[in-house]
Amino acid sequence: MLSARNQFKGTIKSVKLGQIMAEVVIEVAGLEFVSLISRGSAERMNLKDGDEAAAVIKATEVMVDK
Amino acid sequence: MLSARNQFKGTIKSVKLGQIMAEVVIEVAGLEFVSLISRGSAERMNLKDGDEAAAVIKATEVMVDK
Amino acid sequence: MLSARNQFKGTIKSVKLGQIMAEVVIEVAGLEFVSLISRGSAERMNLKDGDEAAAVIKATEVMVDK
Amino acid sequence: MLSARNQFKGTIKSVKLGQIMAEVVIEVAGLEFVSLISRGSAERMNLKDGDEAAAVIKATEVMVDK
Amino acid sequence: MLSARNQFKGTIKSVKLGQIMAEVVIEVAGLEFVSLISRGSAERMNLKDGDEAAAVIKATEVMVDK
Amino acid sequence: MLSARNQFKGTIKSVKLGQIMAEVVIEVAGLEFVSLISRGSAERMNLKDGDEAAAVIKATEVMVDK
Repeated sequence: MLSARNQFKGTIKSVKLGQIMAEVVIEVAGLEFVSLISRGSAERMNLKDGDEAAAVIKATEVMVDK
Repeated sequence: MLSARNQFKGTIKSVKLGQIMAEVVIEVAGLEFVSLISRGSAERMNLKDGDEAAAVIKATEVMVDK
Repeated sequence: MLSARNQFKGTIKSVKLGQIMAEVVIEVAGLEFVSLISRGSAERMNLKDGDEAAAVIKATEVMVDK
Repeated sequence: MLSARNQFKGTIKSVKLGQIMAEVVIEVAGLEFVSLISRGSAERMNLKDGDEAAAVIKATEVMVDK
Repeated sequence: MLSARNQFKGTIKSVKLGQIMAEVVIEVAGLEFVSLISRGSAERMNLKDGDEAAAVIKATEVMVDK
Repeated sequence: MLSARNQFKGTIKSVKLGQIMAEVVIEVAGLEFVSLISRGSAERMNLKDGDEAAAVIKATEVMVDK
């Protein structure tokens, strides 16, 4: 169990690989989460379109706009 | 326009104030986002239950779990 | 109104695009802020030298050196 | 030498201690940086008004608003 | 499997609860990791001294000092 | 003295440069820390295999997994 308060299960819509970084888009409940992780992680986890995956975010990283 | 890739509009469900920090829960599309911000921001923005507000997250802060 | 406590208006000095990421330098009051965002955001916002833009930073991300 | 691209020397304007967290305001070139760190760090470093101190921010934490 | 590149298994040495936040110290290979999470997570996970637990850190959050 | 609570001295095992970003691996006490910083910092600091260097992490960025 991970302490991160925000863990939302969905489906990967796209994976784009750069030299060092990768951009992964996950759709959850009609929302599109954009994630920037290392290319190494994307490869090690074999992330690809259609995979079930969750977007995970530590609560200290969430801002509020009103 | 803010560069943050993740900006999700919803409704504040709760605001809890500590001495320095505040915890704000925002509901979006049935998902509950938990946000930890400064008490100063929560007061300055007058955040309260029922307010329309967005959860905003920089893409570099989003991890993937699969 | 965004909860981020640090929002400093200035001028973009440079934009460098990679495959996934972009590096943006913003000058504010003689200080140079370096920002690493997604290439997607830099393109969507059409960031370029000379634009008026603000550097925005959540307070939990600011350290102190003494 | 620290890799963080944003290191701005200034003066501490206020230090507020909570149970776990502390809020430190640093003035640099007329800008006020708000920092949220652990109370433990604020005490260990003996941070107080008038101290010369720098605000330090990793470039991946800086967003752009335009 | 979580994309975070830094996941280090160890033992909790202390848990301190504030109103909103909690400070958890985890010892791994003789190193002490200090973690600031929400009090809610510390309670929900029932974190306490002696528990086996891992410190988890996204690679974009790791700086280099040389 | 930097407020970051996690500062672990070790040795650089690898440095990989992209266009914008760089990936640096630091070994400390048998643990491998992966760091994603700007290519600019990696070059300015002349980071290379075998250098003594520390991994530095703000406590708000450390999660707990149990």
